[in-house]
Amino acid sequence: MKKIYTLILFLLSINLFAQTFEPAKLKLYSKIADSISRYCLTEQAGYKMLAELSKIGPRMNGSENLEKAIEWAKAKMQSFGFDNIILQPVYIPNWKRGNIEEAIISKSKYHQKRKLRIAALGNSIPTDKNGIEAEVLEVKSFEELRQQKDKAQGKIIFFNRPLDIGLVNTFEGYGGAVGQRSQGAVEAAKIGGVFALVRSVTTKNDNVPHVGTMHYEENIQKIPSAAIGSLDADFLSEALKKEPNLKIKIRMNCSQNPDVISYNVIGDIKGVEHPDEIIAVGGHFDSWDQGDASNDDGAGCVQSIEVLKIFKDLNLKPKRTIRCILFANEENGISGALGYKALTDSLHLNHLALIEADRGAGTPRGFYVTTDSVSFNKLQNFLPILNRVKIDWVRKGGSGADVGQIRNAKALFGYASDEQRYMDYHHSANDVFENVHPRELELGSAAMALLTYLLSEEGL
Amino acid sequence: MKKIYTLILFLLSINLFAQTFEPAKLKLYSKIADSISRYCLTEQAGYKMLAELSKIGPRMNGSENLEKAIEWAKAKMQSFGFDNIILQPVYIPNWKRGNIEEAIISKSKYHQKRKLRIAALGNSIPTDKNGIEAEVLEVKSFEELRQQKDKAQGKIIFFNRPLDIGLVNTFEGYGGAVGQRSQGAVEAAKIGGVFALVRSVTTKNDNVPHVGTMHYEENIQKIPSAAIGSLDADFLSEALKKEPNLKIKIRMNCSQNPDVISYNVIGDIKGVEHPDEIIAVGGHFDSWDQGDASNDDGAGCVQSIEVLKIFKDLNLKPKRTIRCILFANEENGISGALGYKALTDSLHLNHLALIEADRGAGTPRGFYVTTDSVSFNKLQNFLPILNRVKIDWVRKGGSGADVGQIRNAKALFGYASDEQRYMDYHHSANDVFENVHPRELELGSAAMALLTYLLSEEGL
Repeated sequence: MKKIYTLILFLLSINLFAQTFEPAKLKLYSKIADSISRYCLTEQAGYKMLAELSKIGPRMNGSENLEKAIEWAKAKMQSFGFDNIILQPVYIPNWKRGNIEEAIISKSKYHQKRKLRIAALGNSIPTDKNGIEAEVLEVKSFEELRQQKDKAQGKIIFFNRPLDIGLVNTFEGYGGAVGQRSQGAVEAAKIGGVFALVRSVTTKNDNVPHVGTMHYEENIQKIPSAAIGSLDADFLSEALKKEPNLKIKIRMNCSQNPDVISYNVIGDIKGVEHPDEIIAVGGHFDSWDQGDASNDDGAGCVQSIEVLKIFKDLNLKPKRTIRCILFANEENGISGALGYKALTDSLHLNHLALIEADRGAGTPRGFYVTTDSVSFNKLQNFLPILNRVKIDWVRKGGSGADVGQIRNAKALFGYASDEQRYMDYHHSANDVFENVHPRELELGSAAMALLTYLLSEEGL
Repeated sequence: MKKIYTLILFLLSINLFAQTFEPAKLKLYSKIADSISRYCLTEQAGYKMLAELSKIGPRMNGSENLEKAIEWAKAKMQSFGFDNIILQPVYIPNWKRGNIEEAIISKSKYHQKRKLRIAALGNSIPTDKNGIEAEVLEVKSFEELRQQKDKAQGKIIFFNRPLDIGLVNTFEGYGGAVGQRSQGAVEAAKIGGVFALVRSVTTKNDNVPHVGTMHYEENIQKIPSAAIGSLDADFLSEALKKEPNLKIKIRMNCSQNPDVISYNVIGDIKGVEHPDEIIAVGGHFDSWDQGDASNDDGAGCVQSIEVLKIFKDLNLKPKRTIRCILFANEENGISGALGYKALTDSLHLNHLALIEADRGAGTPRGFYVTTDSVSFNKLQNFLPILNRVKIDWVRKGGSGADVGQIRNAKALFGYASDEQRYMDYHHSANDVFENVHPRELELGSAAMALLTYLLSEEGL
């Protein structure tokens, strides 16, 4: 009987003690959580960094801005006294937008010469010098495209499926529409299309083109591709209903150029007890060329730098080594992350965890994590502390395009901020510093710093 | 032994089954949750209502706008087919801002004639026709004021404690500073001050005065009181360091007028199984006169109307009666809530729950609730469903100024949206429709509708 009661007590105790840390630790960690959030919200060091970084302008692969920004980041890390600052060279693609991006309704009874607002998608080939003039086939899906393949020959294929705004999570909505952008030119070319014109993938009802990467496949004809503003997409769709044989003329002189060298920017604070165990925080430093890329991913980058600055300024000595990584080229092939993976493999780096911040500057909500079930349960114990900086959950889920490459890490985290506004800005002229709120950004820095601190103290 | 094992299984089962509903119900409720959120995010009925309401302008007690808005709300409820629509009359105060609000540095070597941006606080008496001219005593707290009481005689008392932006929760920051506004004139008058000039209670570093209510006490001299913009408060503080005997001249011609009648606007959907059990959702319809009061509390009002519209449009037949209440006069004495309490008492109304929405239009975070511990535990079972519309927690805490009056309800809820931006807007010219995001507002409507639905189905 005694054994049974012990068992009952044990079962009950799982519930009682699995909740969090013992009281003294809970008190200490709560105090540290509050000092971190107070530091962030009052100093706003990340927000001030973002003000500087956004003034440099967007950080497109191959651009002078990106080079300037890398120098800026290195100088910041030096001024904050990070250890072991390195620029790790990696190759990046060097596609360039041209100075000609025109789309016009060129044959129509009702809308002759009406302009359409477009922007070439990353990696697109240019049009001929004289442009492409053709009729338009509108479809909402690849399946519909294949059903209509008899009508596709020689036409501009207009992919007009909007982001599903009825979904609560805007990333889920994005995932349901972005295939048209990345794969549209391939699918259109397969059945004889001459151009892939893709509705902007956005939650915002405006006319700003939202760009992004597209790709080609071997043995499939390369055709050019551009994003069209949502309002113009709606306009075109209506016009086609009345006049299915109207023609559009499009000219673009973008260009693909040989790869160039860029850099992952890396800086550390060396751990005092387990210096060989690394906890890395990072975002990607490259961007598209619209707006000033404050949300994607200026925010995640300044937050990652700020995490280490917090340890310095609050004199927190991490047991494990804390590393900030600003990844090169997430937007067009993740060569920065692959370079860091190569470094990890060749130097046998031991990562306890990596945390990626690449979901914009909204208020903290939680962390997604990929890890084993024991570590996952242990992380739930962190929640009463993480709650103090607006982290309400740690859920199983993907981390991010960059840190997701480091598969032998014990845990891979994706920082999840409130994402309701993110797709309003994403890859567009709307992505500017003015659309970042200082408190929301700074609470993100606090959340990442606090998770980093707890991981450094407690391990996994 | 068998009993023991049964006990063990029972203890384990508490953990397994206390988590949520049985699978069939979980599936049904999940489906309804998704249909509610999809309806809200795509139809945006609340956002469209707020666009109309905000065009009427701010809904100050005693204003023509408020009367127009009440007619608008009644007409909306009628057009949506709510049952039992009533305008419940209540008395409201009728303080009016004047057309003169001037503050100027009137005696200074360095800043002669420099204007300061002010706005009279609600209930303040006016100054003399010629204004008040006096030296200034700056303090950060009532304690400091009492310590300096020898210097206070005949002076303008300048309460300059800012909202503590180092706190994570902006309502907590507000709570720590707002006493200066509500009680400042009383404390200043007690020691001979002639005017209470109060730093705006805000998280935003701008010069817009944030107004609100203040009060007087019997047998304490009434002195006028105004809010000053934060930047001008900083300016004045700096100026006083160099020149402690500078003088300010202030003129205001606001006026207190006899109470007038206004209305709580109430509409129902009658319950099909327990029509006498009421679940009410509500916000307050009155506002201050700055901006267009979209956040405080236009948002909560259109969300409350939308909750009932959702039931109508999705053909959800509530088991219990669902009621929308737009409360009169929350801002200056809660006479609307007290009127509804009187109605509750006289008609012996049976409220299962009341849900107040008065924390702005941000993305849902959770619900605070005042209830018994059995009901509180039952509510935790709702979380896997509520999670689907961004409600991450149900925590013990206060509900709101209005529904908090109905003390014999089984549960009183306060809807908690993301509050990081709220105090940027609160009671100021910043509180405009453009500062409301459609998805964030609509998810709030979805969250309140879903909680209402679950309460209606499950009881407490």
